[in-house]
Amino acid sequence: QSKPEHINKAIKKDVDKVVDKYDIEEVTGQCDAASNKTVSYCRCWKSKKFPLCDGSHNTWNKETGDNVGPLVLTKKQ
Amino acid sequence: QSKPEHINKAIKKDVDKVVDKYDIEEVTGQCDAASNKTVSYCRCWKSKKFPLCDGSHNTWNKETGDNVGPLVLTKKQ
Ligand code: FES
Ligand code: FES
Repeated sequence: QSKPEHINKAIKKDVDKVVDKYDIEEVTGQCDAASNKTVSYCRCWKSKKFPLCDGSHNTWNKETGDNVGPLVLTKKQ
Repeated sequence: QSKPEHINKAIKKDVDKVVDKYDIEEVTGQCDAASNKTVSYCRCWKSKKFPLCDGSHNTWNKETGDNVGPLVLTKKQ
């Protein structure tokens, strides 16, 4: 039986574990700044803007039948 | 050539795309409440507490040689 494929094929493969840490106050500021007031983080590991989501999950889902998507942080008006 | 495996094997496979949305003010409150003032979100799709990280990425990485890890939101003291 072969090992499962890596989820992450390309991002920082030189490090043992890709962890991205952000200060929540900073993210809150980014939510404010964006016109739609959201920040989306990639969970498919295919984004060219990783750790941000760039919509690449849609291609992945279409090609593989998977159903992954981002974590979205919003700020109420 | 076979299709790549799904990244997400088990979480909400009945929906087209798993997107989790949170209000950032609410998450800020969770950062405050936690003793270490962090909230970690799963990006390996193996967590029993998904969308939160429960450390399952470590097992996945060990078993497969992958290097995935969570998104961590912190709050400065
Ligand atoms: S590009 Fe990865 S979740 Fe959107
Ligand atoms: S359990 Fe999935 S990233 Fe930690």
